[in-house]
Amino acid sequence: MTEPLKIAVAGLGTVGAGTVKLLADQADLIEQRCGRRITVTAVSARDRSKDRGVDLSGVQWFADPVALAAEADADVVVELIGGAAGAAKATVETAIGRGRHVVTANKALVAHHGTALALAAEERHRTLAFEAAVAGGIPIIKGLREGLAANRTSEVHGILNGTCNYILTEMRTTGREFAEVLAEAQQLGYAEADPSFDIDGIDAAHKLAILTSVAFGCAVDFASVYVEGIRHVAATDLAFAEELGYRIKLLGIARLTPAGVEQRVHPCMVPKDAPIAAVDGVFNAVVAQTDFADRVWLVGRGAGAGPTASAVVADLVDIARGCAAPTFGVPAARLARLEPSPMEGRQGAYYVRLSVADRPGVIADIAAAMRDHDVSMESFLQRGRASSPGEAVPVVLTTHETVEASMRRALAAIAEQRAVLEPPRMIRIEQF
Amino acid sequence: MTEPLKIAVAGLGTVGAGTVKLLADQADLIEQRCGRRITVTAVSARDRSKDRGVDLSGVQWFADPVALAAEADADVVVELIGGAAGAAKATVETAIGRGRHVVTANKALVAHHGTALALAAEERHRTLAFEAAVAGGIPIIKGLREGLAANRTSEVHGILNGTCNYILTEMRTTGREFAEVLAEAQQLGYAEADPSFDIDGIDAAHKLAILTSVAFGCAVDFASVYVEGIRHVAATDLAFAEELGYRIKLLGIARLTPAGVEQRVHPCMVPKDAPIAAVDGVFNAVVAQTDFADRVWLVGRGAGAGPTASAVVADLVDIARGCAAPTFGVPAARLARLEPSPMEGRQGAYYVRLSVADRPGVIADIAAAMRDHDVSMESFLQRGRASSPGEAVPVVLTTHETVEASMRRALAAIAEQRAVLEPPRMIRIEQF
Repeated sequence: MTEPLKIAVAGLGTVGAGTVKLLADQADLIEQRCGRRITVTAVSARDRSKDRGVDLSGVQWFADPVALAAEADADVVVELIGGAAGAAKATVETAIGRGRHVVTANKALVAHHGTALALAAEERHRTLAFEAAVAGGIPIIKGLREGLAANRTSEVHGILNGTCNYILTEMRTTGREFAEVLAEAQQLGYAEADPSFDIDGIDAAHKLAILTSVAFGCAVDFASVYVEGIRHVAATDLAFAEELGYRIKLLGIARLTPAGVEQRVHPCMVPKDAPIAAVDGVFNAVVAQTDFADRVWLVGRGAGAGPTASAVVADLVDIARGCAAPTFGVPAARLARLEPSPMEGRQGAYYVRLSVADRPGVIADIAAAMRDHDVSMESFLQRGRASSPGEAVPVVLTTHETVEASMRRALAAIAEQRAVLEPPRMIRIEQF
Repeated sequence: MTEPLKIAVAGLGTVGAGTVKLLADQADLIEQRCGRRITVTAVSARDRSKDRGVDLSGVQWFADPVALAAEADADVVVELIGGAAGAAKATVETAIGRGRHVVTANKALVAHHGTALALAAEERHRTLAFEAAVAGGIPIIKGLREGLAANRTSEVHGILNGTCNYILTEMRTTGREFAEVLAEAQQLGYAEADPSFDIDGIDAAHKLAILTSVAFGCAVDFASVYVEGIRHVAATDLAFAEELGYRIKLLGIARLTPAGVEQRVHPCMVPKDAPIAAVDGVFNAVVAQTDFADRVWLVGRGAGAGPTASAVVADLVDIARGCAAPTFGVPAARLARLEPSPMEGRQGAYYVRLSVADRPGVIADIAAAMRDHDVSMESFLQRGRASSPGEAVPVVLTTHETVEASMRRALAAIAEQRAVLEPPRMIRIEQF
């Protein structure tokens, strides 16, 4: 029988403990699949006394994950600490430097330092794997890098943050406002105490930057991702979307265009009958547009101990089987350096919601501002009247396809009109 | 630089020519991904003079695929002939016997002889790969065997035949009958001149038998698949389904139950809001229910030159990279021999359509037959009245959850009633 694959786990939070549990529960299955066992030989975590519901007897303890990466008796270091810098980065760099394979669920680290880490790992003929960093239990990295390896991918988009998708789904189905649903999500454990990484789109942007690199074979370029979160999406936007035949989703979208690579995360209106519109709650989805296989999409749970551990162990199974593909689908040294396509060049339709004083001539002024900036209006909706003249009423409009730069200029002009009482809110419409 | 991977292609139909074209079009990309080229060194097809739109200069020709499998200068034989026996089987067996890897798109062959072929290949440490045999361009075999390798899968179901899904979608959206839509599908090239493999469910059953084996780690057991096609689905069934909140799909369903493995292909009513209900036209979908990753689903094109070639080349890329997983996820010698769970034991709800003489007492007699066989009715619908008493009218009913054996006995009794003018039609309701 082949020697076991020895792994050291840095970080025993939800995902770390879940990974240790999975490896114990499925030990026989994994041995069948790999032809060898996968054995946890070392772990590191701050608090040794905490009960994590997993058996760690006989496993070497390290207080310091970097010491674990340097000294543990392990073929693979599994980094589940999190964060783009600090201990996580030092742990991964040390592990690679010592000639160990690395499996990580750390999207921030890969989004910020993925190319450099991949170069270091590939120089030493070691694996750097991060299936768990994107879309949890959905095998999308493997899907793009191996399953669709025969294709050129021109676009990838998806629902990459379960917290935002849960909040938007709840807002739509219950009619409640963002703040109320967020508070509930925090109580249920679907949102963090400090939710800004999720709701401001950063987490989705990390994942998108990684997907972009695997899909297009280019260096990871997180800094170029345009990011907008869901704080400004109101219950009334979801209701208007429904009326207009759309659903609102926080999407990550990456596209190869003649001007370069578009990478953006923002709330989108998508047609109700688009497959992604039906993906609700904490589920994630990723859609790839390829040249030979055409469109392929994958849906599943984007977070949680079980799904994330499933992805971590899938990477371990590959290593145990001796399967290695280039980190981002092509060798890191050959990743293209593609120009970012500026957000101002985005072509598409827009939804705009305004709060205006209900008096004659207001709409004419708004329409004139749109015209002056070459934005062509498609529809206009005002529901209800103010109880007294001059009071605020919501007005929404949609535009025909236009350029983002024109739209921004038109909105800046509209925002300055006296009858416009609050900053205009704009949501991009995407036709998939 | 590493030596090219040399491949011999047996069969130059749509998929064969598509594969050769893909390898030519994406040669540089594939070299980047694999670190070596994939080169076609030999082909076999009946007609050498036919223009297939691909450059075959410098490639060795064989009239006989078995001679190609025996004699070609190739590491891999790609079998794209089709059929469970004859030339395809002899080609694959010869290739494995000569120590070559085999990639095939042949679902019938793998469904009938998969276990034996896998044993033979694994004994010689060679790959037998068949991503293209199931769900075309969707990387579902890799998804189950590698992406979800950490999981036990308890159920897999899916839309596995694009022809049937196209026909059912057209029937629903246009209200036309089966025969008319089938004729159109044949004209459009979505259905074969002899469509029985598709519309009678055999093709889906082949794919399901393969999925079952990969999902549950058991020997392929095509003979135990219960199969019913879509010939008897009428436009009126689709209309009633809509009214009852369902869509009709031809599904393949495999489940691990305490009684053994359920494998069945038949038309199903699924709730309109089930994700699979939204997968229309020629698209395929596969849903896996796993223990750690929970539910994961994949959607894409199930047929066509491009998607199928994409899957064939994904398998070639794995071989070129030196990646090998056990054929069905666990070694063929360790595949479980699981008992089939008989169809008569299926538990679930049913939709029944009857053509009855429109006169008093008919419904009472039907209800009594149901009661006598322990089938509990949930709803009953009669739309419209006959123009004269005693004429035929359609009546539909749905049942609460019951056992298939009871349902069959009840239907047999109802079929014998004088007022029942045509054989009862039954469609199983599945709640996902």
